[in-house]
Amino acid sequence: MNLTILGCYAATPRTFTNPTSQVLEIRNRLFLIDCGEGTQVQLRKNKIKFSKINHVFISHLHGDHFFGLIGLISTFALLNRTTDLHIYGPKGIKEIINLQLRLSNSWTKYGLFFHELESKESEVVFEDDKVIVKTIPLNHRVYTNGFLFQEKIRERKLNLDAVQSYEIEKCYYQNIKNGKDITLDDGRLVENHKLTFDPVPPMSYAFCSDTVYNENIIPIIKEVDVLYHESTFLESEEALAEKTMHSTAKEAARIALKANVQQLVLGHYSTRYDSIELFKEQAETIFPNILLAEDGKSFEF
Amino acid sequence: MNLTILGCYAATPRTFTNPTSQVLEIRNRLFLIDCGEGTQVQLRKNKIKFSKINHVFISHLHGDHFFGLIGLISTFALLNRTTDLHIYGPKGIKEIINLQLRLSNSWTKYGLFFHELESKESEVVFEDDKVIVKTIPLNHRVYTNGFLFQEKIRERKLNLDAVQSYEIEKCYYQNIKNGKDITLDDGRLVENHKLTFDPVPPMSYAFCSDTVYNENIIPIIKEVDVLYHESTFLESEEALAEKTMHSTAKEAARIALKANVQQLVLGHYSTRYDSIELFKEQAETIFPNILLAEDGKSFEF
Repeated sequence: MNLTILGCYAATPRTFTNPTSQVLEIRNRLFLIDCGEGTQVQLRKNKIKFSKINHVFISHLHGDHFFGLIGLISTFALLNRTTDLHIYGPKGIKEIINLQLRLSNSWTKYGLFFHELESKESEVVFEDDKVIVKTIPLNHRVYTNGFLFQEKIRERKLNLDAVQSYEIEKCYYQNIKNGKDITLDDGRLVENHKLTFDPVPPMSYAFCSDTVYNENIIPIIKEVDVLYHESTFLESEEALAEKTMHSTAKEAARIALKANVQQLVLGHYSTRYDSIELFKEQAETIFPNILLAEDGKSFEF
Repeated sequence: MNLTILGCYAATPRTFTNPTSQVLEIRNRLFLIDCGEGTQVQLRKNKIKFSKINHVFISHLHGDHFFGLIGLISTFALLNRTTDLHIYGPKGIKEIINLQLRLSNSWTKYGLFFHELESKESEVVFEDDKVIVKTIPLNHRVYTNGFLFQEKIRERKLNLDAVQSYEIEKCYYQNIKNGKDITLDDGRLVENHKLTFDPVPPMSYAFCSDTVYNENIIPIIKEVDVLYHESTFLESEEALAEKTMHSTAKEAARIALKANVQQLVLGHYSTRYDSIELFKEQAETIFPNILLAEDGKSFEF
């Protein structure tokens, strides 16, 4: 599982900082999460094969999380994309995009599908044979969702030595990897655990931005491998965080601790601070495994 | 008169090239012309005092000319702007911006005024005591206007030696600068040209992008000091230029020649070319005074 941060700063794009956008690669699928202004250039700068992005998840309709979407959609059209593109985001996003496409007389030739969200409960928004994506209802100034990406349990790994020692034919391998026991020609039953190793455990990633401190999300993100939680402010701005419905670094860490996650990634920093190191320092007083998101940084989990 | 090119490439923003946007400074007024994605960051990079921009002119509703506008408007709001902002652009632009402001629940506290254009004739869209701005109807795939910025004639320059030799009191100076003759206390009439020098001649700038080769604009841009004319393609792509309703470098030069302008600035280059030098070479076979726009370049006229 690979996470590339395209932008992790709050509010407005600046010369050296970009608004929220990230690419999650999981089981060979590229998911784009949020799409602030300039995301398409950040995709190029970070050498992401962005024609492979088929699913875009938009947390909420504040500009620093979606103003780059219309540009990306248009660029896909100019690049003669033919693959369907699916957009998951708050109700209204379809009207925003379609109005601009209509007025610029530039409809896409590829299929553009909107999955508009308005539920206040967690729901499955995407599922295929390898990955499932659920919403994480957040609490911000406008309707907002985080997204939980869960790898499905992989097939078991073949123990080749064992399989060959029983002289099992190759046509049975897939059944074995699927967990089936095997009856040999002489009638003996070989139990699956003698023929396979446990698969790599499935990974999970939870993206939570923007939100005020909100313990309601804990059951949904419980024990994820990686939690990205917004930390717009430091402790000194705790009152401002509450007023603007954002979180501090410590609050993000408290959620990570209570949800018993493996790893916390902090981001969505206010640009008022000269250095982001203090976010890590403050969060580490509560939860040990802290990583700092930075524009252009990739994490391999 | 100063022109700063923020972006001068066609179609999509890329790692090292920006879509159309430029800032014209004329008589201490900052006019923003077009606003492709990333314009607000280009304004910062080029150290433009962008809070001083009160008037934004949008040529047409293709994304590479306006996708940065909503971001700029939002950033002005986040920076607590209070001064009115005026947007001049094709009908529909108000709906696009207002829909996004409404859905993100982030109305501006400053006055945001839209002047929607739909006339196919040249019309005055802005005028104050020093500058007048008129549309230049262009011929592109969607409704498009260029813009003609004309300085008004300045007041005459006082010939201080002459004025003092006639012992004229200071309270008459403004009348003299306005071109009035003066009757002295002894009844003699002194003609204005004896008391003043000619003012600096007024400058004019015509922005023409995007458009197919179109001689109808010549009467409007006749003898301007500076003409920016799109040249998306080189001669080898002449057929493509016509099909997509763009111009070649030579066609831009032909318009400059026929309109008898002082200086032609080329821009809106397709990103298919490795170097832009050929645009200058080809245009110079027709018209001598060619400058090449480049992102981040400033011209003083």
